[in-house]
Amino acid sequence: MLRLFSADDHIIEHARVWQDRIPAKYRAVAPHVVEEDGCEYWEYETERAPTVGLNAVAGKPLEEQSMDPIRFSDMRIGCYDPVERAKDFLADGILASILFPTLPKFAGTLFITFQDKVLADLCIKAYNDFVIDEWCPAGPKGLYVPTVICQLWDPELAAAEIHRCADRGARALSFPENGVPLGLPSYWNSYWDPIWRACEERDIPLCLHIGTSGEIPNPSPDSGPALGFAVMQVGSVLSSVNLMMSPVCRLFPRLKFVFSEGGIGWLPNAVERADRMWLRHKYYSKFEGVLPSEIFRQNMYLCMIEEPICLKYRDDIGIDKIMWECDYPHTDTVWPSSQASAQAVFDEAKCSPAEIEAITHGNAERVFNWQMAAADLATV
Amino acid sequence: MLRLFSADDHIIEHARVWQDRIPAKYRAVAPHVVEEDGCEYWEYETERAPTVGLNAVAGKPLEEQSMDPIRFSDMRIGCYDPVERAKDFLADGILASILFPTLPKFAGTLFITFQDKVLADLCIKAYNDFVIDEWCPAGPKGLYVPTVICQLWDPELAAAEIHRCADRGARALSFPENGVPLGLPSYWNSYWDPIWRACEERDIPLCLHIGTSGEIPNPSPDSGPALGFAVMQVGSVLSSVNLMMSPVCRLFPRLKFVFSEGGIGWLPNAVERADRMWLRHKYYSKFEGVLPSEIFRQNMYLCMIEEPICLKYRDDIGIDKIMWECDYPHTDTVWPSSQASAQAVFDEAKCSPAEIEAITHGNAERVFNWQMAAADLATV
Repeated sequence: MLRLFSADDHIIEHARVWQDRIPAKYRAVAPHVVEEDGCEYWEYETERAPTVGLNAVAGKPLEEQSMDPIRFSDMRIGCYDPVERAKDFLADGILASILFPTLPKFAGTLFITFQDKVLADLCIKAYNDFVIDEWCPAGPKGLYVPTVICQLWDPELAAAEIHRCADRGARALSFPENGVPLGLPSYWNSYWDPIWRACEERDIPLCLHIGTSGEIPNPSPDSGPALGFAVMQVGSVLSSVNLMMSPVCRLFPRLKFVFSEGGIGWLPNAVERADRMWLRHKYYSKFEGVLPSEIFRQNMYLCMIEEPICLKYRDDIGIDKIMWECDYPHTDTVWPSSQASAQAVFDEAKCSPAEIEAITHGNAERVFNWQMAAADLATV
Repeated sequence: MLRLFSADDHIIEHARVWQDRIPAKYRAVAPHVVEEDGCEYWEYETERAPTVGLNAVAGKPLEEQSMDPIRFSDMRIGCYDPVERAKDFLADGILASILFPTLPKFAGTLFITFQDKVLADLCIKAYNDFVIDEWCPAGPKGLYVPTVICQLWDPELAAAEIHRCADRGARALSFPENGVPLGLPSYWNSYWDPIWRACEERDIPLCLHIGTSGEIPNPSPDSGPALGFAVMQVGSVLSSVNLMMSPVCRLFPRLKFVFSEGGIGWLPNAVERADRMWLRHKYYSKFEGVLPSEIFRQNMYLCMIEEPICLKYRDDIGIDKIMWECDYPHTDTVWPSSQASAQAVFDEAKCSPAEIEAITHGNAERVFNWQMAAADLATV
């Protein structure tokens, strides 16, 4: 059986995550679930949001999946319950998992939009405490990698939160692909330095999940959501080349950026083009230092679900750069067939045992500095 | 010597292109060049635009290139003179060339913004007549492939113009990557059917140059223009996947789409992801028919300047899908070293003579149904 470290999964928060942790005077405006006409909604401040069906489809046949709102009772329990999730993971040979939030959006960007930033700060800390105190300890040792979010509107506050969470065991930060579409400065701006510095000091990799810039690059919005999903890797192209060319990793050379759910196959083209453009435009642009490809080699990592065609290009990508991911419980997930799916990809791409070990868990264990759960917990 | 068919070059229009062809009553508001404080500007309607330096750098060392405005007298004469251009091309072994406009923007999208659409229509026709009557006949037979633009704001008018130009020898239409950012309907909308029908009837390939959606996908605009150039292939990813999944080629199966200056290396990843998303989202999306990859194989072509790394993936792309391009006189161009550049790429990627023949000219001759100039005209 393959020993799988999944570099990208998702928590669906249960209804009391914030109500259990936010001081009484804020509870009415903190996220809570209301029921109306048979539907469940999250409410916070003056907003209301449904849970989108495609965000919680683990175990559902493709024919029954849709964008329609769903209730907790429609979901597989493992979506929101860490004990049941652990059973689902172990049954599929998944021995470690990086987990992104849902209501806060993957990188916690929902809280940027809060009118009351004291409340927003409390919500960030409540989510992180939920992950560290409630979700992660509910699984066997090593299964859940504590992955946190931070106060993107205040990098000094964010740096303090990164240190607080690192002290409590956090091993990854979920972070936006790009600040600009969120109304924040670009990653070429020193605004972000406190966060880069904290992540470098504490060796906390930044996980940049597709979609976290707040832009879904759908070229024909009237076509429905599937086209947006089909081109979502564009977010990782833009984000990685932006960071490869920016001063960030030149100033903080031990940073680790992981492009979650972005895939791998676009990388050789992105790097080949970025290097060529760097060399052709460096004079008037006043670029100095190493090529973008060197920054990739030094600071960046990619994630793959099923890319048997592009996995053949692994020598150009770097075998030490590729991590497997499951994406439970989203529509992209291969659960409950992770073993068969991963093996079929490795067979089609003719990977060696050492390559399979690196992609399934070796790279992730090294990048996140994390020891997976014991393999004998898995029941398959 | 390699016999090169360049699938992407650019005309810099001389100052009288529109003044020579537009009726007298419109001449004052039709495009014309004015001089002020030592600078030259194009003026039209109530607008004024400089000629950007990077658009006309053929023959200039990289160190001297910039975004600053330039004058005609600063440019190599081959930028705007078809007789001199022919000498430049032939000296580099280029025996055929697809040419995009400059002032009208690559796909003629400038004229969408004109207040007076009668004037805009006259300007489109004037540009096309300039290409067919003045530019192309100035070179040896076969060198200049007549490439035209159309009235994007009125597809029936555009279809009539495509037929008019096809009757006069046009062999390619320069067309936007995506209508949506231009304020026009998406390619999933039947709005465009008259244009698709005309191009299919006359076997006119549509050349979708990067940047023609009007969006340059620069993730950090404060970083300067180089980052935007480094990620510009994203335009071709979005455009091609959009068209692969849309009804367009399912309704007009003999259409040919050429992604100009988009490169090749992103294609296997884009197709692999598009197929996977098509299969996973087809039920609620009500997708029917062949996979996106099949539409690519049937209807699409890619262009490459220098991608030795990704050219190794040619079996996954399709050797019949790849065309070489020169991009004279833009900053991406390899002129006046086209021969050495192309040969080095083919050597590094270990291409066979048959593969080199397909990429350098065989594919383009077939797709554009065009016979190149005689090789013995070339002087190198």
